[in-house]
Amino acid sequence: MTVVRPRRREQAKEGKLGAVQALVYADMRQVNRLIVGRLDSPVHLISELASHLVAAGGKRVRPMLTLIAAKLCDYRGERHIKLAAAVEFIHSATLLHDDVVDQSDLRRGSATANTIWGNKPSVLVGDFLFSRAFQVMVEDGSLEVLGILANASAVIAQGEVAQLITANDTETTESAYMEVIQAKTATLFAAAAELGAVVADRPAAEAEALRSYGANLGIAFQLIDDVLDYSSREVVLGKSIGDDFRDGKITLPVVLALQRGDSSERRFWRRTLEQVEQEDDDLLQAIELLERHAALTDSVAQAVRYGDTARRALEVFPNSPTKSAMLDLVDFCLERAF
Amino acid sequence: MTVVRPRRREQAKEGKLGAVQALVYADMRQVNRLIVGRLDSPVHLISELASHLVAAGGKRVRPMLTLIAAKLCDYRGERHIKLAAAVEFIHSATLLHDDVVDQSDLRRGSATANTIWGNKPSVLVGDFLFSRAFQVMVEDGSLEVLGILANASAVIAQGEVAQLITANDTETTESAYMEVIQAKTATLFAAAAELGAVVADRPAAEAEALRSYGANLGIAFQLIDDVLDYSSREVVLGKSIGDDFRDGKITLPVVLALQRGDSSERRFWRRTLEQVEQEDDDLLQAIELLERHAALTDSVAQAVRYGDTARRALEVFPNSPTKSAMLDLVDFCLERAF
Repeated sequence: MTVVRPRRREQAKEGKLGAVQALVYADMRQVNRLIVGRLDSPVHLISELASHLVAAGGKRVRPMLTLIAAKLCDYRGERHIKLAAAVEFIHSATLLHDDVVDQSDLRRGSATANTIWGNKPSVLVGDFLFSRAFQVMVEDGSLEVLGILANASAVIAQGEVAQLITANDTETTESAYMEVIQAKTATLFAAAAELGAVVADRPAAEAEALRSYGANLGIAFQLIDDVLDYSSREVVLGKSIGDDFRDGKITLPVVLALQRGDSSERRFWRRTLEQVEQEDDDLLQAIELLERHAALTDSVAQAVRYGDTARRALEVFPNSPTKSAMLDLVDFCLERAF
Repeated sequence: MTVVRPRRREQAKEGKLGAVQALVYADMRQVNRLIVGRLDSPVHLISELASHLVAAGGKRVRPMLTLIAAKLCDYRGERHIKLAAAVEFIHSATLLHDDVVDQSDLRRGSATANTIWGNKPSVLVGDFLFSRAFQVMVEDGSLEVLGILANASAVIAQGEVAQLITANDTETTESAYMEVIQAKTATLFAAAAELGAVVADRPAAEAEALRSYGANLGIAFQLIDDVLDYSSREVVLGKSIGDDFRDGKITLPVVLALQRGDSSERRFWRRTLEQVEQEDDDLLQAIELLERHAALTDSVAQAVRYGDTARRALEVFPNSPTKSAMLDLVDFCLERAF
């Protein structure tokens, strides 16, 4: 999975994200403007640090989901702009806190905020962004929206703590791992997509369909992320390879390799991930074991299944260019792995 | 200020807090029950860590303000219970993050959560408590309340970051210091008290009066806290003496001593608080300088003035046992210093 791909393939991938990006281009510009405007603070360090993370970009997958879902529901108002910004603020707050918790050095190919400014401002600016998200929702004025994102935030925090517990525990089961990514990733994807139906005041079945699309897309997205941590070229993913390994995180590829390995292999995983005693060649050794047991390809296959479920969730909606773009978005998430 | 007081004085102080405590006793029991119930999580570590901090108690001054203000406004419903719990959740979230940021070892006389469980769960459980606060407010269903506490949370986070910037900066002015405590402490006191008028649907003037009472009480409270960090007996305050000094925090006593000291004294403060190069006797030396320049007594005098403003804010309310208890609460906050 680490060989260099032909250029054409890269373009095809960009094209798949591009369809959604093109459809929400004008909306996303408004979201970006709103985000930049709402990062303003009399405390200069807040604007500076938050801008480094939020205004610098990233793929903005989550707010994109809100925008494209609103479009799918034929929404004609302006509320989706604010809600997409609120979703991105919540996501950014969790990223800041994640990077502190994981002691990460790189995020989206740049130095993390905690590396540049230290852990303390990262924790506090995360709190600020979280508060800002709720201020924006209050301005929007919908208790339903506030409920969706307050619940999502609580579940995400629980998922992050659960992940902390499964970290370094080689007894972690596949279902415990799935619960973690359901909580920490799928929940916000689901909420972001659902908001599109909520602002458009569509029937519960459509809100539920979008929620399912988002949740399953989120799981597929996270599974691929976990695979990429053992296989991506750093330049593509914009994050270091082997981060999860060095942190002793137990992701699906590792769970599968542990199930399928012999006792000497399990000793290797326990030493490297539980005791976090790692030597220079251990990451290469880990990748070799993952490949030997088809743990990466089987994790991708799992992601593909969740991607299929995400696609099927959209069946309640009539065909349209927007729906096609949302189906392509599933491919985009999956094909990052190839 | 560090001599042992006669026992009668201690009892008189307890009595002053006791009047408020007695008036809200039944309500506070409900708040505590609600808090314990809402700390429940499928992720056991969350309940455990949060309970250590929240369920273990503390004076609960902030939720007490919501309860007593609701009583002052003759409120007869049940909403104040939930809102008091939301206030305490927000406060607890900021405490968890504060202790991580300040690397504190002791809180309310017990080991801090970050000392027992580490920084990572403290950050994430803080996020959980913050989310829980908003879930509880959504259940309550008032956008006005959500707005008040979302705004308060954003201002608190900004105050915490501002405090980080003034930390270790001996050029900090008195007004910069006042802005910090206004944001990080007075804001939540003000919001907590205001909620009493909001649930009771009282006129804006009363909401504003309670807000002013809370804000000024909060400033007085924080000023006394800052004085106690240089003068309290550890057993009374339940926190170590000299924490602020060791962290290089610039509080009002230090600002005053810096203004009033000669150049050799300023060199001492720069070495100890800016470069944080401290030797064994430096805390004693600091206390001596603070006393030489009447910096502690003048800070207390400042607190007394804010306390007077807090008292005057209640003039719009007719006399009642509840109002008397709220006036006594001001004395209680101030007399911790004596």
